[in-house]
Amino acid sequence: MTVQPPATGDVALPPVPWPRLFAERARSMRGSPIRELQEISLKPGIISFAGGMPADELFPIDEFCNACERVLRTHGSRALQYATTDGIPALREIIAHRASQNGLHVGAQNVLVTTGAQQALDLIGRILIDPGDKILVERPTYIGALQSWSTHQARFLSVGVDDEGLVVDDVEAMLRARPKFIYSIATFQNPTGAVLSIERRRALVRLAARHSVPIVEDDAYGQLRYSGQNVAPLLAVDAEERDTGNATSLGNVLYLGSFSKTLSPGLRVGWVIGPADVITQLNRAKQTADLHTSPLAQSIALDFLQSGFLDRHVERLRLAYAERRDAMLEAMSVSFPTTVTWRAPAGGFFVWVTLPEPLDAATVLIGAIARNVAFVPGAAFSPDRSGSNTLRLNFTHPSPELIREGIARLGPILARLVDRGA
Amino acid sequence: MTVQPPATGDVALPPVPWPRLFAERARSMRGSPIRELQEISLKPGIISFAGGMPADELFPIDEFCNACERVLRTHGSRALQYATTDGIPALREIIAHRASQNGLHVGAQNVLVTTGAQQALDLIGRILIDPGDKILVERPTYIGALQSWSTHQARFLSVGVDDEGLVVDDVEAMLRARPKFIYSIATFQNPTGAVLSIERRRALVRLAARHSVPIVEDDAYGQLRYSGQNVAPLLAVDAEERDTGNATSLGNVLYLGSFSKTLSPGLRVGWVIGPADVITQLNRAKQTADLHTSPLAQSIALDFLQSGFLDRHVERLRLAYAERRDAMLEAMSVSFPTTVTWRAPAGGFFVWVTLPEPLDAATVLIGAIARNVAFVPGAAFSPDRSGSNTLRLNFTHPSPELIREGIARLGPILARLVDRGA
Repeated sequence: MTVQPPATGDVALPPVPWPRLFAERARSMRGSPIRELQEISLKPGIISFAGGMPADELFPIDEFCNACERVLRTHGSRALQYATTDGIPALREIIAHRASQNGLHVGAQNVLVTTGAQQALDLIGRILIDPGDKILVERPTYIGALQSWSTHQARFLSVGVDDEGLVVDDVEAMLRARPKFIYSIATFQNPTGAVLSIERRRALVRLAARHSVPIVEDDAYGQLRYSGQNVAPLLAVDAEERDTGNATSLGNVLYLGSFSKTLSPGLRVGWVIGPADVITQLNRAKQTADLHTSPLAQSIALDFLQSGFLDRHVERLRLAYAERRDAMLEAMSVSFPTTVTWRAPAGGFFVWVTLPEPLDAATVLIGAIARNVAFVPGAAFSPDRSGSNTLRLNFTHPSPELIREGIARLGPILARLVDRGA
Repeated sequence: MTVQPPATGDVALPPVPWPRLFAERARSMRGSPIRELQEISLKPGIISFAGGMPADELFPIDEFCNACERVLRTHGSRALQYATTDGIPALREIIAHRASQNGLHVGAQNVLVTTGAQQALDLIGRILIDPGDKILVERPTYIGALQSWSTHQARFLSVGVDDEGLVVDDVEAMLRARPKFIYSIATFQNPTGAVLSIERRRALVRLAARHSVPIVEDDAYGQLRYSGQNVAPLLAVDAEERDTGNATSLGNVLYLGSFSKTLSPGLRVGWVIGPADVITQLNRAKQTADLHTSPLAQSIALDFLQSGFLDRHVERLRLAYAERRDAMLEAMSVSFPTTVTWRAPAGGFFVWVTLPEPLDAATVLIGAIARNVAFVPGAAFSPDRSGSNTLRLNFTHPSPELIREGIARLGPILARLVDRGA
């Protein structure tokens, strides 16, 4: 092709009115404030508590090199070729096996591998949400879920979170509005770090089942516990409540897992566990979304599971992240005004901070960015933008030293604003 | 958690009526006949012409091992961490640069990296298709596009394909029905192998622009030419027709590229090139779909582009696939009845075969599977299921020996059925 004058006409082609062509649902697509804050986080010298990222320096580079080599040498054409939509069978088997504890029986037919847990959220929206459907979420909750389901034109009902997680006593009233499903990050909730107590888990699964409202349980953080005892996932509690002690089957819960927080977000490998007929429907939705998840990435995750490396690595992460959490909590105790409160998390990625009202976290953020510190104001996590006096701090990505330095910078900003408000 | 009788109630929890909860759009989700045929293709001893897969034995395993090692050692945390939704900047730059030839100027802001080209099709559906919108497609066309846009509740208009590709003379009448966009696999069309002539390309882009109907150009196969001269993509032809010889800008075409056919489908890396405001909207849709495409996979593709390996590898594929195409065409000439015709493709993955009417390819498939040969009946590729006397043969996945053997098995089946029909 060479550049030459138009060959077939003499008038210029008209400009294309692209935005006029956009679909109705495109209007509800907005960028995430977190992803916009990530741009700021790339400023040299900034200490960012904004993202929800694992630590760069804890990625097991040597082991990744070795796993890539093993995968490519032994299963090269499987890793590089087209694959089935549901995922590599051996990976689905091992995920099912690991979820099948304490009487809960999960088979490979109950597992769909997804391109990160974000895709699982999106696929669930595709198969369950009709425009105008209501979804019951925790308030605050994960922004990416709100964004994804907004594009499916859902509306949100919300119930607050306290020290024991979702306030289940307030759920029943909301169920009268017939939400399509309940979304819960029951363990080390994003953004609050709260853990739903076992009593509330039992009450929630019974309530949901009685009202025929499914539960979507997002368990991205469940393996990252730094103190206290494990609490069974809603998936297992639901199965337990359904049966009387024998082998249980899946019921009312779709469970979302991910390797993003434990191994690497760059792999983009997550999974859904659920009843086989729902997995089949999710599979059909996934086929049109991206055919299948990278078998190279799946094979690497499988290698790490089979070798036992992942479990050893998670132990290492637990120690490292516990140290960072403690560094943050200690620094906050030293630097933050006494009227500022927070929840000490037993795991996960975040500390949730409450400022004395009417102090607005967005105002604090302006001062913080001027001092080269970033975080996410809490209102971003609520569908109704409530909680303007809250904020989320991530402690897994910055080093303990940077955590101490960043909190030391935040302290005086908070003190000045609290004083001014008082 | 231990197994114990229900703690909080005495009646069994009711079963969940999952299928009653499925969304309207879920009803239009069906499995692809090709992906179902893939199951058959896994039967030991079967020779499959059914899929659209590159050759297993041509994957450059050593180079993949080396690239993984280089990527992880030099950019480990970039490859394993969360990344921006639009793609790794250096990859977007090099994709833009390679598309900027002959007066067409593409910048990184015009490029979105996607999780395979399938995701690009899906994201385009998300931002452009309202339920009931019409899409104008080639007849036959890629099944995955029909499936994806069906889930967005599109309806399809279609125009036939002949030896010069889409019959553009028939397009104008269809444009009166106001389709939302035109979908064209202009080069080495799937499934027909046809190439849209340059004259028709010029006519198509002018027609589309005059009617303000965008074109989605899917160019998964364009680099795999085995004979003849390159024809400029619609993206470039549109830009050329818009301007008068100077630097051109993007206009009416969204261009889809992919590394799946040239490097590895297992990477799941593709891209869209388009006007910056459309890329921004696609980016928002992608954010909710899977946050971003694996930066590990993107980094591997980038490494292969930067080192020049990809271009050398494509040369090697061209030679190998040309040999397979020739083996198939020669074997068909020898074994197929003279009333069976086909199009000799100048590139791509497929030979398109037409049987004498009223012979049905589905009938042939039953006989073929009994002889351990598989292919895809052509009706699967048309939204109106027309073309029951056509079928698609893939020649890139089986070796030349298996191609000869498989065609030799098909010949007598066809001869018997043609005789019976006569």
